Amino acid sequence: MYPKKELAQLVISACHQFNIDTIVISPGSRNAPLTIGFSNHTEIETLSVVDERCAAFFALGIAQQKQKPVAILCTSGSALLNYYPAIAEAFYSNIPLVVISADRPKHLIDIGDGQTIRQENVFENHILFSANLIENPKFIARNSQLIGEALQIATSQKGPVHINVPFDEPLYETVSELKTFHFPNISMSSLDNSNINYQNLAEIWNTADKKMLVIGVNYPDEELHSLMDLYSDDESVMIFTETTSNLYYKKAVNAIDQLIFSLDDAQFQELQPDILITFGGMIVSKRIKKFLREYQPKHHWNIDEHKATNTFFCLTEFIQTKPVDFFSNFNKIITKKKSDYQSNWLEIRDYRREKHTEYLSQIQHSDFKVFEQVLESIPNNSDLQISNSAIIRYAQLFQLKNSLRVFCNRGTSGIDGSTSTAIGAAFASKNQTVFITGDLSFFYDSNALWNKNIPNNFRIVLINNSGGGIFKIIPGPSTTNAAKYFETPHCLTAEHLCKMYDFDYLQASSTETVTEALNGFYESDTEINSEEMKKPKILEIFTPSAENDLILKEYFKYIK
Amino acid sequence: MYPKKELAQLVISACHQFNIDTIVISPGSRNAPLTIGFSNHTEIETLSVVDERCAAFFALGIAQQKQKPVAILCTSGSALLNYYPAIAEAFYSNIPLVVISADRPKHLIDIGDGQTIRQENVFENHILFSANLIENPKFIARNSQLIGEALQIATSQKGPVHINVPFDEPLYETVSELKTFHFPNISMSSLDNSNINYQNLAEIWNTADKKMLVIGVNYPDEELHSLMDLYSDDESVMIFTETTSNLYYKKAVNAIDQLIFSLDDAQFQELQPDILITFGGMIVSKRIKKFLREYQPKHHWNIDEHKATNTFFCLTEFIQTKPVDFFSNFNKIITKKKSDYQSNWLEIRDYRREKHTEYLSQIQHSDFKVFEQVLESIPNNSDLQISNSAIIRYAQLFQLKNSLRVFCNRGTSGIDGSTSTAIGAAFASKNQTVFITGDLSFFYDSNALWNKNIPNNFRIVLINNSGGGIFKIIPGPSTTNAAKYFETPHCLTAEHLCKMYDFDYLQASSTETVTEALNGFYESDTEINSEEMKKPKILEIFTPSAENDLILKEYFKYIK
Repeated sequence: MYPKKELAQLVISACHQFNIDTIVISPGSRNAPLTIGFSNHTEIETLSVVDERCAAFFALGIAQQKQKPVAILCTSGSALLNYYPAIAEAFYSNIPLVVISADRPKHLIDIGDGQTIRQENVFENHILFSANLIENPKFIARNSQLIGEALQIATSQKGPVHINVPFDEPLYETVSELKTFHFPNISMSSLDNSNINYQNLAEIWNTADKKMLVIGVNYPDEELHSLMDLYSDDESVMIFTETTSNLYYKKAVNAIDQLIFSLDDAQFQELQPDILITFGGMIVSKRIKKFLREYQPKHHWNIDEHKATNTFFCLTEFIQTKPVDFFSNFNKIITKKKSDYQSNWLEIRDYRREKHTEYLSQIQHSDFKVFEQVLESIPNNSDLQISNSAIIRYAQLFQLKNSLRVFCNRGTSGIDGSTSTAIGAAFASKNQTVFITGDLSFFYDSNALWNKNIPNNFRIVLINNSGGGIFKIIPGPSTTNAAKYFETPHCLTAEHLCKMYDFDYLQASSTETVTEALNGFYESDTEINSEEMKKPKILEIFTPSAENDLILKEYFKYIK
Repeated sequence: MYPKKELAQLVISACHQFNIDTIVISPGSRNAPLTIGFSNHTEIETLSVVDERCAAFFALGIAQQKQKPVAILCTSGSALLNYYPAIAEAFYSNIPLVVISADRPKHLIDIGDGQTIRQENVFENHILFSANLIENPKFIARNSQLIGEALQIATSQKGPVHINVPFDEPLYETVSELKTFHFPNISMSSLDNSNINYQNLAEIWNTADKKMLVIGVNYPDEELHSLMDLYSDDESVMIFTETTSNLYYKKAVNAIDQLIFSLDDAQFQELQPDILITFGGMIVSKRIKKFLREYQPKHHWNIDEHKATNTFFCLTEFIQTKPVDFFSNFNKIITKKKSDYQSNWLEIRDYRREKHTEYLSQIQHSDFKVFEQVLESIPNNSDLQISNSAIIRYAQLFQLKNSLRVFCNRGTSGIDGSTSTAIGAAFASKNQTVFITGDLSFFYDSNALWNKNIPNNFRIVLINNSGGGIFKIIPGPSTTNAAKYFETPHCLTAEHLCKMYDFDYLQASSTETVTEALNGFYESDTEINSEEMKKPKILEIFTPSAENDLILKEYFKYIK
């Protein structure tokens, strides 16, 4: 059973030909021709999520894991606008998200028809391509061209595209055949690596004593990982890997903020690199940004397939290629250099690590202590999803287990869709997925739990400090008498939501009860006897709002 | 305690001078200068709502009731994008919503800084004005001009405007004084009524035998109401008032769909008007749109202060003025005409009303029956907020009590923010507010309940038919085998949310239990003895999903 409408058939055929196999659909009438077609297509999996904001982040999580485009489909009107937060995240996180919106025909826009807005180009600021289709057999070539271009751009440039599909009534007529359409081969300007002057770069590299690599958000990649070993073993190179980099080296700083928070000016001067290489997505650490903006390297090379990021205002070379390609070439022509740059810093790093462990052994129940317990508890080889704001910042203070795959929505750093994204990722990866989140993020995206595709092995650790803890950490808000507008204190718990959405619910509010609750928390379905206990779980940990920030402040003094 | 930043002072001073007294703030750091300033301003009320989507709809509800601009304030990044659904609603419903977003300075955009997107003009498609400010003392005149223009447009043209305010750090410095700034007088092109040729229109009017008025969304207005009495008493005029028109006449059709659903072609031909006058916002009734597009009047005059709406593709005259001004002039020069146009239709109307009552007395517990009970129960002079989709369509089948003030988000007809809007309206009007909603709308906007400003006399009637009932009513979806993507069946209830957000919870699932539950449902705080029972209430009514649509289908046959 397929839609009778040729335009709907065209869109479905295109998605299939461009290898899209997952569509998240939100209910509506105008999108009926596509809903009918996609849901009857044997090679396309359709998933239903009502709240479009959650639907889009859920799809984003799936695309994050599958590393290929996932489509979302909604009806006309404001439905579409609820996709926007996830679209912006996809735009800045380079995640291929194909937004398909049903629309009314053009003559029905702005004449007082219901559920009708100006959908064409509505995501202009944060979209790679907008295909505004027209329902008219005359335009089939034009429509094919636009759809093909959109899907090719989403795939090759890795980001969001928008296909707007107007349908006139009737919407529900069906036929038994799905036609196959031909989509023009769009010639994408392919990367031209030939203009990268490796020799020149190597000459600069080989003579420098202080070289730094800062690696942001990065999908786990073994090839890249082993290519970088070379740098970890070079005494003149310091590697800073962010928590989201998914790269771990013995001789690297992988808890950036732990090291960098407590440095003084003299140390920063000492650390200032001659050459800085960056790749990967957004950098979380504010301190390292501040440091490198103040103590700029002579050379900053940014490697990226798509676009340059001049984070420190001193970019000297944009190397437009995949990092893995760059290093396979570069590694062949560079030499190691004797230097005490690395060892000096590793010494400080090791000192800090020791003090870190010491400090944590002394402190009472708090956000910080909870992080130690939770991170320690996560089974090897799990996927770890981290929410934004205070949560990701705490995580940056810890050395994570090397076997974890770590993800966080750092494109826009929003708190608006972390739970939905984590659920999408858990659904797609099938791997044990653990999501650590704060209370504001969690309650913001509570509709994320309204989803029938949450795997039983999905785990949420909710650290509830009764309000925006971040605003106690950053200096400023407490000095104003507008605290409630920053922290937005509340006394909500996840307990009722767990009942509503059939999650198993555990709670803890002391070091001992946290340990207890984590014991058995990750048991898989096969280890659980009772059928009704086979469900996703939330562990809500209440922490003392007043003490959390003091404990963190003391930490930075202690490890210094 | 006011922000030290001049730009923040400028924005606060402008809002105050332009008579904005309510700001809904969502937490964040970049907006700190404004948060501090607004929350310390003695003449501005600040309200805190975390989820920006809800915050914007909440503000929209307040503006809907106050009939003046209300501001919303958020931090930089995707926070802002969550405002978009409410902005589109405000755009199409002519509600003055002043969107204030904090931003990073321009040089920090697209260089890898966190929580940073392209905020300038991001609502381009659905905004009356975008003021992109610059934080630099040099630009104070330019900034004043832009802010002044934005606020003046929001006020005079009644719609959303966006003020984007970039702030560099430090964000938390304060001073004790709020300076006063001067804002240039922006000359708005004022309405020129002189070119309306009343005589000419009256000549056409006075000779026509069949004249129709169709009145859409309209804020309650006694002056307008009494001006229209004249037409109700004219035998050649048929008035159709939509449920959201807030106009009631004895000789009008005020349950449009009840009349129009069951007409046949011959009757439509008979009903086809020579002259059609329309005013007010969006028309809900699809049937009346279909009818008037097919049986177009010779003359269609649309009266609106701002823009023409050519809903039936036959607009002959756009009368740009306030309806109240038009009718005060027009009434003086028109004459009544003998005709059987009105009486013929009132006869059918009265027959349908009788059959309607008869039918309802016979049917079992269902969505339809519940509407009769609930509408009957609402105390006189209450505010009735109605959600979209099936709920507003059911309401259009009933004659509502004349003393009710009725509201519905018909700008974009979205299900995404009806609860938040109703709560904002209840908060602002202080009047007994009753909100009738369906399950999908309700769960979609469940974060609406996360709000400390919900008045105790606020009442929600949630009609839960376990999925999108609308898709059983409209023909089409049931014929496909993709039903679950339309109806999205679920087994959620509001019970847990009530516990979470401290609402009193009642439920019913039969005609008898509904009657019982409604008895005492509207008791005010003064009538309630127990302190802890003084809280807002939700009555959740479960209806039989399978029978609802049959009962509705039978209705249209029965009343024919």
